[in-house]
Amino acid sequence: MNLTEMGAKAKKVSRLMGKLGQEEKNRGLLAAADALSASQRQILEANEADVREAEARGMKPGMVDRLRLTASRVEAMADGFKSVAALEDPIGEVESMKRRPNGLLIGKKRVPLGVIGIIYEARPNVTADAFGLCFKSGNAVILKGGSDAIQSNLAIVKAIREGLKSAGLPEDAVQLISDTGRESARELMRLNGYLDVLIPRGSAGLIRTVVENSTVPVIETGTGNCHIYVDASADFQMALDIIYNAKTQRIGVCNACESLVVHRSIAAEFLPLLKKKLDEKQVEIRGDEESCRLAEGIVPAAEEDWGTEYLDYILSVKLVDSLDEAIDHINRYSTGHSEAIITKDYANAKRFLDEIDSAAVYVNASTRFTDGAEFGFGAEIGISTQKLHARGPMGLRELTTIKYVICGDGQVRP
Amino acid sequence: MNLTEMGAKAKKVSRLMGKLGQEEKNRGLLAAADALSASQRQILEANEADVREAEARGMKPGMVDRLRLTASRVEAMADGFKSVAALEDPIGEVESMKRRPNGLLIGKKRVPLGVIGIIYEARPNVTADAFGLCFKSGNAVILKGGSDAIQSNLAIVKAIREGLKSAGLPEDAVQLISDTGRESARELMRLNGYLDVLIPRGSAGLIRTVVENSTVPVIETGTGNCHIYVDASADFQMALDIIYNAKTQRIGVCNACESLVVHRSIAAEFLPLLKKKLDEKQVEIRGDEESCRLAEGIVPAAEEDWGTEYLDYILSVKLVDSLDEAIDHINRYSTGHSEAIITKDYANAKRFLDEIDSAAVYVNASTRFTDGAEFGFGAEIGISTQKLHARGPMGLRELTTIKYVICGDGQVRP
Repeated sequence: MNLTEMGAKAKKVSRLMGKLGQEEKNRGLLAAADALSASQRQILEANEADVREAEARGMKPGMVDRLRLTASRVEAMADGFKSVAALEDPIGEVESMKRRPNGLLIGKKRVPLGVIGIIYEARPNVTADAFGLCFKSGNAVILKGGSDAIQSNLAIVKAIREGLKSAGLPEDAVQLISDTGRESARELMRLNGYLDVLIPRGSAGLIRTVVENSTVPVIETGTGNCHIYVDASADFQMALDIIYNAKTQRIGVCNACESLVVHRSIAAEFLPLLKKKLDEKQVEIRGDEESCRLAEGIVPAAEEDWGTEYLDYILSVKLVDSLDEAIDHINRYSTGHSEAIITKDYANAKRFLDEIDSAAVYVNASTRFTDGAEFGFGAEIGISTQKLHARGPMGLRELTTIKYVICGDGQVRP
Repeated sequence: MNLTEMGAKAKKVSRLMGKLGQEEKNRGLLAAADALSASQRQILEANEADVREAEARGMKPGMVDRLRLTASRVEAMADGFKSVAALEDPIGEVESMKRRPNGLLIGKKRVPLGVIGIIYEARPNVTADAFGLCFKSGNAVILKGGSDAIQSNLAIVKAIREGLKSAGLPEDAVQLISDTGRESARELMRLNGYLDVLIPRGSAGLIRTVVENSTVPVIETGTGNCHIYVDASADFQMALDIIYNAKTQRIGVCNACESLVVHRSIAAEFLPLLKKKLDEKQVEIRGDEESCRLAEGIVPAAEEDWGTEYLDYILSVKLVDSLDEAIDHINRYSTGHSEAIITKDYANAKRFLDEIDSAAVYVNASTRFTDGAEFGFGAEIGISTQKLHARGPMGLRELTTIKYVICGDGQVRP
């Protein structure tokens, strides 16, 4: 099937989905959860084939781990649908309905976006997660996963569609592009008229490709060169605990800390303590010239270190003379994801919150909290690092839009 | 100056602007208003030169009228700044600050988008309007107007910058690209890293070019193939008044009605009345086969008429057998701008509001009300016909985004 046909099907079904009530949508999600559980054997077999081929091609173990499904991971996907079913439906609410002087009633009604495209790499769980959130928010979804996971994705989507069908709901609420080539990716990026938004999830390279080539609106997600600034007044123990957590609790995620900015006045005392703490996890510290002098074992950073998202046991360190310099450095090199200040100073905390231009700005807490579940959204489809439409963790509400509904009794414009 | 330098300047100044309070911003707007008035002679002279050259090139009178400034039009721009100064500042509000179970306080703070690009054609008033709204919402703006109005635009921007300077505010809050060539337009569309959003204002062709070539996020505005559906139960007089208003009150605007959908059961009676009413303004009616038979003087429509935004004294008419057919036709051919139903039937009104997929959906009122001032926003920068970020008239709030501010006391993620 070509993409225009898929787009037309999705658009058609999205009209139906906009009319579904919360109960029907939850019935669909629970049926999809049951179908995933019932198809566990087929999904695991398909995944086994993907993993075998990936290993034969020499895929790195870390990537293979993201690709691999187990019985409990399939159950986690099914449980994910149940969690989404438990979330409140954002659709249909009319906000701020007001009466204009001419008697017109004008309100903003929350409605689905329509058709959402998701383009991603080798994580088959994205297939299920994306469907769950799109379905609950009344959107049809077209999925384009990576070739490494194609057999897993086909099996997962087949099960979800069977579940929807058994619940009397439209199967085309989810469609998977079975052609994993680049040509179909490019076609998806230019499916204006059918696709209301395209969300890339994955590596910085994938996201850049989508931003540069899409003519449909894109929500840029994910890349996180997150900074922590240790202010002159910081509580050292708090700073060490937060940095240790933000750097090492999980290294491969976008909200992990990649770069430290430290006030020069405390560096001589703080950096040796930091080195010692991070040695527990063999974190390599790459510092500017002075940092290297202040603590043994800190290796020299190059200019490109300041802009690098390592996703590894590596951390860069830059010394500054002032909060101004810290803010300038962070606003220059960060990807606008998450940044934190560790301070006891009220004015500095306030200025950091005001002047750092990122999706999530923290005082005295780990950047690892930038996450839909941690923010209380129940689930997330990604973390937006752009400013348009959605910023930070995107939950159900970020998959909706509004339309103006206007009730009159014959008004014309004078 | 090249665009990267302009982008860097804008980005730098946008950091300052995010910190300006409402009083400072209003002072800037009032100073800019005074400067426009004081520079009236220079602006009119520059405009006279633009108009002379445009006429020499054979520009159509309607276009020349849009290009031409008069003393009262310059005063209207200055008054526009005063009106924007009177609007409430959306920046700085923190929405729904909540305490999470771990004690973190998480809130959404409303902040400027940062740097906004506006690309437009030959209307010099857009120069002033765009600056006013961007400035009040704390954004730096880079303007790229059409070559036809370049001398007018240069004079207007010069005056505004002088006004800002006299008020001690950063002149680079507004920059105009003086090179009016296509190459600089393309460069602007790819100014990622500096531009947070690009808003095209003007013809369908301009908007398409921007959507297809931009790598920065775009808000699509304007094109309006607006429909009115006359239901079987419609009050004929109301329908005639609304159609007459929506079609003829101002023909060159995006919220004018371009196409009529009429229930077949009333067509024989209604169409002759419609023809008579629209004859008052010599409106050409292009109808499907049956319409042509039902009223003398209706001329045959071709397939492309259903998708055409005439911006002229022309209206297409399509007959349908049901509300379903009307909704399908409208959702297929409309540009998602504004559509209205004329009906006495509650269920049909409700279904139309629910199922029409447009920015503004009306019951028993003219589509001409889709406008920032009419909606009570005070002013607008354009009307979005896309679903991402903003839909319908865009006021100050639509030129903002949020960031999450998180206050902790040492929280780390378990």
